[in-house]
Amino acid sequence: MSSRYNSILTEIYNEALPLKQTGTVANYIPELAKIDPDKFGIHLRTLDGDDFFIGDSDEKFSIQSISKVFALALAVSLIGEKVFKRVGVEPSGSSFNSLVQLEYEKGIPRNPLINAGAMVVCDILIDKLKHPKKEILNFVRKLSGNQSVSFNEHVAASEKEFGFRNAALANLVKSFGNIHHTVDEVLDIYFHICSLEMSCRDLATAFLLFANHGKLPNTHEEILTKSQTKRLSAVMQTCGFYDEAGEFSFTVGLPGKSGVGGGIVALHPHKYAVATWSPRLNAKGNSVMGMKALELLTTKLGSSIF
Amino acid sequence: MSSRYNSILTEIYNEALPLKQTGTVANYIPELAKIDPDKFGIHLRTLDGDDFFIGDSDEKFSIQSISKVFALALAVSLIGEKVFKRVGVEPSGSSFNSLVQLEYEKGIPRNPLINAGAMVVCDILIDKLKHPKKEILNFVRKLSGNQSVSFNEHVAASEKEFGFRNAALANLVKSFGNIHHTVDEVLDIYFHICSLEMSCRDLATAFLLFANHGKLPNTHEEILTKSQTKRLSAVMQTCGFYDEAGEFSFTVGLPGKSGVGGGIVALHPHKYAVATWSPRLNAKGNSVMGMKALELLTTKLGSSIF
Amino acid sequence: MSSRYNSILTEIYNEALPLKQTGTVANYIPELAKIDPDKFGIHLRTLDGDDFFIGDSDEKFSIQSISKVFALALAVSLIGEKVFKRVGVEPSGSSFNSLVQLEYEKGIPRNPLINAGAMVVCDILIDKLKHPKKEILNFVRKLSGNQSVSFNEHVAASEKEFGFRNAALANLVKSFGNIHHTVDEVLDIYFHICSLEMSCRDLATAFLLFANHGKLPNTHEEILTKSQTKRLSAVMQTCGFYDEAGEFSFTVGLPGKSGVGGGIVALHPHKYAVATWSPRLNAKGNSVMGMKALELLTTKLGSSIF
Amino acid sequence: MSSRYNSILTEIYNEALPLKQTGTVANYIPELAKIDPDKFGIHLRTLDGDDFFIGDSDEKFSIQSISKVFALALAVSLIGEKVFKRVGVEPSGSSFNSLVQLEYEKGIPRNPLINAGAMVVCDILIDKLKHPKKEILNFVRKLSGNQSVSFNEHVAASEKEFGFRNAALANLVKSFGNIHHTVDEVLDIYFHICSLEMSCRDLATAFLLFANHGKLPNTHEEILTKSQTKRLSAVMQTCGFYDEAGEFSFTVGLPGKSGVGGGIVALHPHKYAVATWSPRLNAKGNSVMGMKALELLTTKLGSSIF
Repeated sequence: MSSRYNSILTEIYNEALPLKQTGTVANYIPELAKIDPDKFGIHLRTLDGDDFFIGDSDEKFSIQSISKVFALALAVSLIGEKVFKRVGVEPSGSSFNSLVQLEYEKGIPRNPLINAGAMVVCDILIDKLKHPKKEILNFVRKLSGNQSVSFNEHVAASEKEFGFRNAALANLVKSFGNIHHTVDEVLDIYFHICSLEMSCRDLATAFLLFANHGKLPNTHEEILTKSQTKRLSAVMQTCGFYDEAGEFSFTVGLPGKSGVGGGIVALHPHKYAVATWSPRLNAKGNSVMGMKALELLTTKLGSSIF
Repeated sequence: MSSRYNSILTEIYNEALPLKQTGTVANYIPELAKIDPDKFGIHLRTLDGDDFFIGDSDEKFSIQSISKVFALALAVSLIGEKVFKRVGVEPSGSSFNSLVQLEYEKGIPRNPLINAGAMVVCDILIDKLKHPKKEILNFVRKLSGNQSVSFNEHVAASEKEFGFRNAALANLVKSFGNIHHTVDEVLDIYFHICSLEMSCRDLATAFLLFANHGKLPNTHEEILTKSQTKRLSAVMQTCGFYDEAGEFSFTVGLPGKSGVGGGIVALHPHKYAVATWSPRLNAKGNSVMGMKALELLTTKLGSSIF
Repeated sequence: MSSRYNSILTEIYNEALPLKQTGTVANYIPELAKIDPDKFGIHLRTLDGDDFFIGDSDEKFSIQSISKVFALALAVSLIGEKVFKRVGVEPSGSSFNSLVQLEYEKGIPRNPLINAGAMVVCDILIDKLKHPKKEILNFVRKLSGNQSVSFNEHVAASEKEFGFRNAALANLVKSFGNIHHTVDEVLDIYFHICSLEMSCRDLATAFLLFANHGKLPNTHEEILTKSQTKRLSAVMQTCGFYDEAGEFSFTVGLPGKSGVGGGIVALHPHKYAVATWSPRLNAKGNSVMGMKALELLTTKLGSSIF
Repeated sequence: MSSRYNSILTEIYNEALPLKQTGTVANYIPELAKIDPDKFGIHLRTLDGDDFFIGDSDEKFSIQSISKVFALALAVSLIGEKVFKRVGVEPSGSSFNSLVQLEYEKGIPRNPLINAGAMVVCDILIDKLKHPKKEILNFVRKLSGNQSVSFNEHVAASEKEFGFRNAALANLVKSFGNIHHTVDEVLDIYFHICSLEMSCRDLATAFLLFANHGKLPNTHEEILTKSQTKRLSAVMQTCGFYDEAGEFSFTVGLPGKSGVGGGIVALHPHKYAVATWSPRLNAKGNSVMGMKALELLTTKLGSSIF
């Protein structure tokens, strides 16, 4: 098996490479625009503990929205299904109406993987944690098995400096009473988790949790129940790719999450987790080469959930 | 195995039954309001050809929106992926903004399982079929192996009589040039397919196609390619349950489609298809006992895709 | 006075003329696109019965949306304030959300001068008139004192052929129960009144009614009460110029109504009515030279209502 | 004349009084909810300098949104028509879509009398004034001829404490670059002007400016040009009454502005300004007795602009 994965990863890497010039690096904050656009890495880790990787898979990058999954997992581990009284589990449709949707639904964000939803999750974490930033960091370090994972304070500061639209969302949610702490506290946590830097290896390792019924693969510690894990995978499947959830379900066919830093992470329940990184994004905000690599992977492995 | 499925179906049936009084029968057209609200049936058919059933599983009912999957499958079998140039594959968010979304996206419906999308699919079928109604009927009869499947002309006429909102959608799509035939022709097909009457047995049999890579299980005739079948399952997974796609993904974890007649059909790729029928609907328009029965089924079988 | 109006009209005409090349003729139906874009006429009629005119003021053109005022006046003369139980009196904001607004307000159009509102007015006219088209025509002929005013059947047919967006609106209103007759009947009236052809002289004469407390200036017959007339002027002031009602209130400062055929008619209560015609429209759908001419008129006369 | 106005005011007062129990006092901030709901005053001042008043016309109250007119007048006096490059002059339709409209129109508020528009005006004032709060206060004191007019710091603080929706609007506008200073600075000015306390006498005196072509009636100092004054009156006419601009145009027929503190002020160009105060509001946020009193006034005087 090992040699098969190895050769498939090499194939994928080479077949995706011609797309190197396609897409645009996110530039809504200066910090992200600085990144080398030609980076490309893949890391796949199986439940058996085998690692397969290629390219820049050990280099850390800004995980951005992928962090919403970690925040959600931590919140669910703390207060269980009660999270879903304050945030929905349904896809949100195109983003052009995110504000009107929030109004229509009285400040209950459609799901925890859109910005407003992640802010409500951050509000829950502030409530339940004594030192939210430190404890979130410890949680991610534990899942990824890497103590060097950390926030990038420059990115967090840059997000804050240009984050007026996010401040609008947070204030609107708060006007409906669905944020309990101050907008500043919530955005501080939100911008920090977005700034988390991890490698493909870190992400693949951390997401094995969801492929493993909510238990850490090495220690078998239960972080989430089976049912909670299924819920999180379902949310990723239907809401994890901005306005390409349907496209990703088809082309890749795995639950996962992408970030505008160019990272994508996906998992095959009971089998493996895989992360890719390539900064150039398509018009919907998802990594061009990452999408291609994952499509090739599930095609070659014949391992989509459909 | 056989006896296990049998006993599980009996368990499910009995555990769902206490919900008998919950929910409301669809009454937006008089024909649907007449139905006996206490009907309840389940039929599961495996790829091996085994049938398991209980309750009113052999009684025909109005399949309503489930028919959108048949129309889509037929259109894709006729012109392939070109269908998706005229209709998207992304979930649509809450229905309150279906009209504004259609405007914003210039008459391209978000997916083929919302009303506007199904109308575009009907427009394609009119284009490609000499006798659309007859040929659609033959297609559904072939998939279900039941020559007695037919339209209910009273229901079709009733839909037309009260179908002003659907006429608004069709005209709006046509104003953008994405309907080529007359609105009357398109709505005639649309209202007819909604009026199709099938039993749980018929539906489970017909949906085996999607569990079997697009081949008819008995003759192995290829109706759809593997890739097309995956596309259809992905669309059902993300868009098949109105505003409960995320909820269904979590509680049931299978691709499927529901109708306001109280039917639900779902499939486990490579394994089985299962249909339920119970007319009382929850607030989102999905059958209360059907949702419960399918949740219990995948829990007891441990067979969700997540 | 007479010589003063005469010289002012000549000045206005000459000062507006340099805008001759600015703007675009409406072309959403072929019939309108055929018009000579260089036409330009003005006609002002005082309550004393004096006429002042210049250019193509005696040539008939398609009055389009100006007809909504006639339909409304006739409906109010028939059933009084009850009209405003089925249609509002508030401006509608930008047109991009006309459909969602209609949904949000449960099928009650914001005002009678937007398309959906005029359709409800047509529905009322069908209800109250034995031969709606004939009687509407007689009403307009009576107000304008011109028995040759008539519908242009080619324009009406052309509107119908391309009127899918209007059919969408009518069906949506009907889905809320606020259209009682069939959509076809309502659209037939609606498209016919849009096709009315009148000259600047006809329009100025007809709108004197609103400058004269609702009485015909020659016979003193009361068509509308004082209060009803005030209501109609207020509606024209706030809703008569698509998305330029505020702009027109400022630059011209008179209640009035424009049409995409290039006509504009306005009135100074207790004083005069004035109509202009020039087919080239600005981006908001109002006649470029017409707007300019009326701005110059009220500036030179010092006769805005503000 | 004097005795006529006097007796009319007495009539109006008595005829409006039976509505005393109708409507609800604004309670979105605790400070406003404390007010005695039975207060009722009217003050009319003519251009000739005559004053007519009745009831609680000399008692100060929170002018709330009426202050938007003062901010706008000051901004226009400072930078002229350039104000309207950053804020529109068109009515906004119902408030349910204020956020989506702002997005659709790229952060350019529809007009300066909605909250978002007034914030942009505040941003302009911060730009042009050394001590914005002090200079705004001086401007209002000058117009009203009352040096005791002042901010209510408790109300301003209370607005801030509960002003999350306003903070959402300000951040959204800023995300489009149409607010140049910090959101905190802009909201500080905005909440302060809302907290201005003035009596009916103060308001009627101050609004005489707009009835007098932009000149202070006593000193003849020109604060605004004739054209600027016309613009402001046109904006008040079409946008001054939330979602009742059309209704107010009809029933009262004068340009004006209302506030949720229960104040309304209106003006008849070249004649007079009049202010009313009564805290109970109708469903659209306008004072019930104030609306009634002004309707009776223009009816009895026969002095609507229509």
